[in-house]
Amino acid sequence: MTIPAPLAVSLGDPAGAAPELIAEAWMRREEADLAPFFVVGGAGLLKAAAATRGIDLPVVPIAAAGETVAAFAAGLPVLGPEDCAPSFGEPTHEGGRLALHSLTQAARMALSGEAGGAVTGPIAKSKLAEVGFTQPGQTEFCADACGVPPEDAVMMLAGPLLRTVPLTVHVALSAVPGLITRDLIERKARIVARALARDFGLTAPRIAITGLNPHAGEDGRMGREEIETIAPAIAALQAEGLAVTGPHPADALFAAHEREKFDVALCMYHDQALVPIKTLDFDRGVNVTLGLPIVRTSPDHGTAFGIAGKGIASPGAMIAAIRMAGECAARRARMAA
Amino acid sequence: MTIPAPLAVSLGDPAGAAPELIAEAWMRREEADLAPFFVVGGAGLLKAAAATRGIDLPVVPIAAAGETVAAFAAGLPVLGPEDCAPSFGEPTHEGGRLALHSLTQAARMALSGEAGGAVTGPIAKSKLAEVGFTQPGQTEFCADACGVPPEDAVMMLAGPLLRTVPLTVHVALSAVPGLITRDLIERKARIVARALARDFGLTAPRIAITGLNPHAGEDGRMGREEIETIAPAIAALQAEGLAVTGPHPADALFAAHEREKFDVALCMYHDQALVPIKTLDFDRGVNVTLGLPIVRTSPDHGTAFGIAGKGIASPGAMIAAIRMAGECAARRARMAA
Repeated sequence: MTIPAPLAVSLGDPAGAAPELIAEAWMRREEADLAPFFVVGGAGLLKAAAATRGIDLPVVPIAAAGETVAAFAAGLPVLGPEDCAPSFGEPTHEGGRLALHSLTQAARMALSGEAGGAVTGPIAKSKLAEVGFTQPGQTEFCADACGVPPEDAVMMLAGPLLRTVPLTVHVALSAVPGLITRDLIERKARIVARALARDFGLTAPRIAITGLNPHAGEDGRMGREEIETIAPAIAALQAEGLAVTGPHPADALFAAHEREKFDVALCMYHDQALVPIKTLDFDRGVNVTLGLPIVRTSPDHGTAFGIAGKGIASPGAMIAAIRMAGECAARRARMAA
Repeated sequence: MTIPAPLAVSLGDPAGAAPELIAEAWMRREEADLAPFFVVGGAGLLKAAAATRGIDLPVVPIAAAGETVAAFAAGLPVLGPEDCAPSFGEPTHEGGRLALHSLTQAARMALSGEAGGAVTGPIAKSKLAEVGFTQPGQTEFCADACGVPPEDAVMMLAGPLLRTVPLTVHVALSAVPGLITRDLIERKARIVARALARDFGLTAPRIAITGLNPHAGEDGRMGREEIETIAPAIAALQAEGLAVTGPHPADALFAAHEREKFDVALCMYHDQALVPIKTLDFDRGVNVTLGLPIVRTSPDHGTAFGIAGKGIASPGAMIAAIRMAGECAARRARMAA
């Protein structure tokens, strides 16, 4: 069996909950069946964050990713001396610099192959902008680091019961109808199909595509986007041999008996994709970037400044993000062998 | 204790699943704790529909609603001789006439007080249009029958875990932003608050109002409707003393720990309200009309022509609709006493 390189985990904003949740994930590494991972920077910060949850975290300083596997049983491997003082709930300039360093290195090492993938802790964009972060978010940052156009980096939300992809993301709802084009749907569907085959072992993934309007427009009575744009895109994808269905009325698509019929739902806008994921299982959603040369996951929550350092943040999503990255990395390693 | 008048149940389209589900509800009347109800018309049809589920349904013909309570233990009370031949899955002109008669009488008797409320079986609008049905749907029909302007009849979806109200319903998504006004939000919120107090025993209902845009606009970065329209409406409602919160990002609002914090969510559009309801519990959603002088509920599913007569349609929503109407009617009867 081919053993993939260890995962690189970035700290996220040091004032948020990510450091304590990374520590918690290491503590639960065996029960959660996590592949070996290391954190870029923040040895002291991680110990302090763990202490807020009553954890006496052993940290093993490492100088290269290759030391991770040997160190992992004894403690959380931390790469490099970069660190910052803890200030949970109150983001600082120093913390922003450490977060950006950690993210930059994690992405770089995943791209070089030193790491099997990158798991990125949540950041606050406005805080990181102060220290030179110029991207709209970490997805775009990772795409740029990999030399991939941002429109080809596709965000997928994966919970225990459902995977969804929002075709449009952080735009006003009034802008959504104008952004839905045949090209957008077809391009993203192809990226999703390839990525689910490569990283998730779904060789012919079943892709359900939603309508934009109530009841998927009901034959044009409530909007014509289904007839003019979405159905033609679906027909083109089907003609290519992809297992695509739709346009489905979104309201019924996420019921238990419907979820069995597809592997991923392509949704027209943010809330259409995010509402069912978060409604079904708020604490274990993973944000996966499809279409990149690297494996990249992130817990699907924010920095959680409001509850950081209080011992109450749920580690479910962080653990799920690390586990999913490990599974994807293992598949890539097997295919490369 | 004041005993409310029995509920009037309309058949819905005779070719759909409603007749067999009404029969199933009567069979389960004791375990489901259903208040006495009668059906307007369709004695032979109901027996035939029941037979498709293996039920030998006793039917008790009645000549007036007042005979329901005495008859209810022995069989399903059916009012009037109107009937039609069974043709499950294939709607007919004759069936449309019976459906319209049944609906018209049920609403009329709820308004006169002969019935404690109306539970309406699902119809196919296009079929009923052929026999003179001119309304967009049963909600508007019931409003008109009661002399209430259609905009004051508010559709609420109620599942076992969640209640939601879509502020706009069967319109294209592109039309939604233009329809969201302060007046719409405030007017519907007041109707909801009054109705939840009167019919659901929630004297100070907690009303959560969603945003229109992702992350509720994130301070105007993704749409300004929250700032310009929704937040001012919320402030006005709060100033009137209503327990209103928001605008909430819709994606996180329906997670289990958030649902505990409100009694009903007012949503900006159809799928925002319907996706969480159907995702959580597809088979037990009830469509309740608030703001009418009568109690009116309906199972939140369609005619189900495709599975009618096959014994597989789930009776959960029909049973929930009858039970909810009974509970609302009982509250009104107690308050009137």
